[in-house]
Amino acid sequence: MVSKQELQPNANSSFRKVVEKVVDHRAFTVTVIVLILFNAVIVGLETYPSLYNEHKGLFFTIDFILLWTFTIEIAMRLIASNPTKRFFKNPWNWFDLLIVSAGHIFAGAQFITVLRILRVLRVLRAISVIPSLRRLVDALLMTIPALGNILILMSMVFYIFAVIGTMLFSSVAPEFFGTLQQTLLTLFQLVTLDSWASGVMRPISAEMTGAWIYFVSFILVGTFIIFNLFIGVIVNNVEKANELELKGEIEEEKEQLQAELSQLRGEVSEMKQMLAEMNKKLK
Amino acid sequence: MVSKQELQPNANSSFRKVVEKVVDHRAFTVTVIVLILFNAVIVGLETYPSLYNEHKGLFFTIDFILLWTFTIEIAMRLIASNPTKRFFKNPWNWFDLLIVSAGHIFAGAQFITVLRILRVLRVLRAISVIPSLRRLVDALLMTIPALGNILILMSMVFYIFAVIGTMLFSSVAPEFFGTLQQTLLTLFQLVTLDSWASGVMRPISAEMTGAWIYFVSFILVGTFIIFNLFIGVIVNNVEKANELELKGEIEEEKEQLQAELSQLRGEVSEMKQMLAEMNKKLK
Amino acid sequence: MVSKQELQPNANSSFRKVVEKVVDHRAFTVTVIVLILFNAVIVGLETYPSLYNEHKGLFFTIDFILLWTFTIEIAMRLIASNPTKRFFKNPWNWFDLLIVSAGHIFAGAQFITVLRILRVLRVLRAISVIPSLRRLVDALLMTIPALGNILILMSMVFYIFAVIGTMLFSSVAPEFFGTLQQTLLTLFQLVTLDSWASGVMRPISAEMTGAWIYFVSFILVGTFIIFNLFIGVIVNNVEKANELELKGEIEEEKEQLQAELSQLRGEVSEMKQMLAEMNKKLK
Amino acid sequence: MVSKQELQPNANSSFRKVVEKVVDHRAFTVTVIVLILFNAVIVGLETYPSLYNEHKGLFFTIDFILLWTFTIEIAMRLIASNPTKRFFKNPWNWFDLLIVSAGHIFAGAQFITVLRILRVLRVLRAISVIPSLRRLVDALLMTIPALGNILILMSMVFYIFAVIGTMLFSSVAPEFFGTLQQTLLTLFQLVTLDSWASGVMRPISAEMTGAWIYFVSFILVGTFIIFNLFIGVIVNNVEKANELELKGEIEEEKEQLQAELSQLRGEVSEMKQMLAEMNKKLK
Repeated sequence: MVSKQELQPNANSSFRKVVEKVVDHRAFTVTVIVLILFNAVIVGLETYPSLYNEHKGLFFTIDFILLWTFTIEIAMRLIASNPTKRFFKNPWNWFDLLIVSAGHIFAGAQFITVLRILRVLRVLRAISVIPSLRRLVDALLMTIPALGNILILMSMVFYIFAVIGTMLFSSVAPEFFGTLQQTLLTLFQLVTLDSWASGVMRPISAEMTGAWIYFVSFILVGTFIIFNLFIGVIVNNVEKANELELKGEIEEEKEQLQAELSQLRGEVSEMKQMLAEMNKKLK
Repeated sequence: MVSKQELQPNANSSFRKVVEKVVDHRAFTVTVIVLILFNAVIVGLETYPSLYNEHKGLFFTIDFILLWTFTIEIAMRLIASNPTKRFFKNPWNWFDLLIVSAGHIFAGAQFITVLRILRVLRVLRAISVIPSLRRLVDALLMTIPALGNILILMSMVFYIFAVIGTMLFSSVAPEFFGTLQQTLLTLFQLVTLDSWASGVMRPISAEMTGAWIYFVSFILVGTFIIFNLFIGVIVNNVEKANELELKGEIEEEKEQLQAELSQLRGEVSEMKQMLAEMNKKLK
Repeated sequence: MVSKQELQPNANSSFRKVVEKVVDHRAFTVTVIVLILFNAVIVGLETYPSLYNEHKGLFFTIDFILLWTFTIEIAMRLIASNPTKRFFKNPWNWFDLLIVSAGHIFAGAQFITVLRILRVLRVLRAISVIPSLRRLVDALLMTIPALGNILILMSMVFYIFAVIGTMLFSSVAPEFFGTLQQTLLTLFQLVTLDSWASGVMRPISAEMTGAWIYFVSFILVGTFIIFNLFIGVIVNNVEKANELELKGEIEEEKEQLQAELSQLRGEVSEMKQMLAEMNKKLK
Repeated sequence: MVSKQELQPNANSSFRKVVEKVVDHRAFTVTVIVLILFNAVIVGLETYPSLYNEHKGLFFTIDFILLWTFTIEIAMRLIASNPTKRFFKNPWNWFDLLIVSAGHIFAGAQFITVLRILRVLRVLRAISVIPSLRRLVDALLMTIPALGNILILMSMVFYIFAVIGTMLFSSVAPEFFGTLQQTLLTLFQLVTLDSWASGVMRPISAEMTGAWIYFVSFILVGTFIIFNLFIGVIVNNVEKANELELKGEIEEEKEQLQAELSQLRGEVSEMKQMLAEMNKKLK
């Protein structure tokens, strides 16, 4: 299909080729990274109220230009990709598209905060543009599915303790255990061990004897599961590394020894033939 | 024994077979999981007082139906298992039986909280029903016996520090070190590093010089043991993974090389025989 | 030397043999463990003031009996060990000796607290008596020398930050940085991350701009070193485990393949001799 | 080049040789270490105001002598290094040079604190003088470049959350989120989990519903990245250790087996030649 298109060059296809050449050029990526960094500096400066209020117009203009530059950049990438479907197969392109198009959609909106957060999130585009970062994030996200079961277990433990906690302590400590949502947040705080005893357990224990059983058992179960999650990932990764490195080493050794052995067998076969010949002559 | 029963089909056994067919069907497990999830949602909704007080009757009815559905489900599993003993060999079945029968036992009781906690714990049945979760939890629990000695050591350290702590600080800080039980709880707080210095050590140090020796030594010993516990589990798991993966690899290599070598030896033996024959002829 | 003694049995030596038999008997170890547990329970009960004050005499008598029982036990171990030097070569015996003899030395002393702490520390004798615990603690202590350099580095970092911290903040926050000792304790608190920002850095930062540089750099350097200490131990242990397990596996493979190869070479040598013989005949 | 110099011994070169002999002597290193320790004790004593104020002159004199001793020491090292360039190739020598020359530069300055900090930092010279410590620190620093990408990612996450945090909470909690710098410091506190919920999130949540989304997502993302950084380093190190140890083992095995095989092939070749000879005779 691609070769067909190459055989029928028309204005459209030659334009695509020029764009492809531009997009694949090193300078293109460098320019985009510089623009993203510039965008990052701008959103940083905007957080200083005095600066922002004085130069509101300037910030607005810069943002307008940046948004359209990024739009053109993505359009060029879309045109350059051949076939066009390939562009949409890469989730990072969807990410870029989402970030930029959201900028256009909310452009006239009243939600100034949403718009500004979108502008900040454009910094994340550095990940999709720099290949080494993209590979790192891909690798990080790949570890999540392997944790599927342990995350389901963790959710179950959280939910069960949340329901029990709300039942037991909603009247004693409404700021921590008032509703199911609040309790879930409190449990997240407990599992990070932040003030779990000093701030949460001790005040409740003072009013309700035996409350420590709930807290200590949650801390033990929660940290035990996280601990195992941790170990699971480490073991998984060490195993993978070993597989790649040492298995390759063993494989290589096997191949070399087998090569030697098959040469030896070749020579032995030759000798056998010679012997057979001699045997015939002796008869 | 099983084959004998199959040769003597009677009403009882054919009923068992029908039940077995039902229990082994995919839809059965899916239905049970859906019911457990529904049970989870119900106990979650019950935590909202306004909702619960308004629809008390409905919640009661749903719970009654769920309890009996789970009872029937377990009864069916019991009937389906052949021989019946096998049912009782699986600790997960005991767990199911306990959770459900406790629901019946406490049904008329006054301890409304106990009853509601039991209803929440039914969510844990998801573990016994979903095989991948069951295997995960089995694996997690299997790591505990290997930690036996280190847990005994940890208990000894806790007990010794608890007795000394109660002796030294019971009058200075009764809220932390009043009784042996309170001290044990405080030591658990210390080992999680929650406010160990800011909340516990500094106020006590202010009244008693040298108290820091107790706290720092406990933190050092306690975290050192936990740290080693952690490392022990990691090393254990990495080792096991290596054993399975790389040992298999090495084993395979050995077998292939040995197969090659034995073929070679076969050929060499043949040659030796040929030579012996030739030698005879030459004589 | 031992055999010589066996050839000259006298009253003294036969007495030693009886004691050795007693000491080596399973019941002896079990009895000692039971006594240590009993001692643990007693020191636990002593922490309840009401109980202690009521039965002071009883507690005193029990302790007196326990101390002398342990003394006799150690004396028996000493007599049973052959040659006597061997007893003093085991550091655990020195530990036992120290714990028990200290009980005698401070017996009449006024320092009631020291005496009571000694009584509690006797629980630690469980380690020296139960072989599996002794091996575990030996293994734990063995990891320390390997950490020698990293501990020296850690001490240097602590000392340097302690001197700088005292210089900078002794007037701003005398309760944390008053003297070098107090600063060292504060740094230990910081490295455990307990209230490092909320309790220590923020109040000081409020009075002294730029103080955060000191705290953030210490947290980064301190946790980085601990982190590497951690990793060092893990890698060390994984390596050791691999060495023992996989090296053995590889060694075994090599030996089996070499055995096969040397058999093959044997056969080939034989063939060569046969050929040489035949060659001679043909001449 | 070195040999040429040896052939033309002149006054300058023979002086260099004497210095080199002195510098390479064990006593030289020991003396320097003792002086560094002495310097450490002195800066420690200086933190006690009563001591310092009483013996100001003495402390000043000791420091003066130490500074010049270290200057001479480094000058000797510089003279001894052959060729001189080699001295400047070692970054540790630059470190030594910097520490000592800064002492001279700021000698007359008013910034007494800077001068005193420099004096404390001289303790770090122990690292450059003791080879085992130098190797350890080299190893620790070597792990940083491998973390390059993950540190860039971490910085991006910090920056994005800092801008958003300042935007959202600068008016609600100016002490934590007032400016971009303050927010970055707060995020560092959050990622160490110090009072993240009790001290930062809960007060802000009380005034702004939904604030928990920001905090929980930052904690999850931040700890997830640190967690992966941790795992990356562990896996990296385990891999390296395995590479060195087990690869060597496999390599050795391969070599021995190959040696055996090539001997075998040698013998087989000999036999083939003998057979060829015999074959010729038979013709």
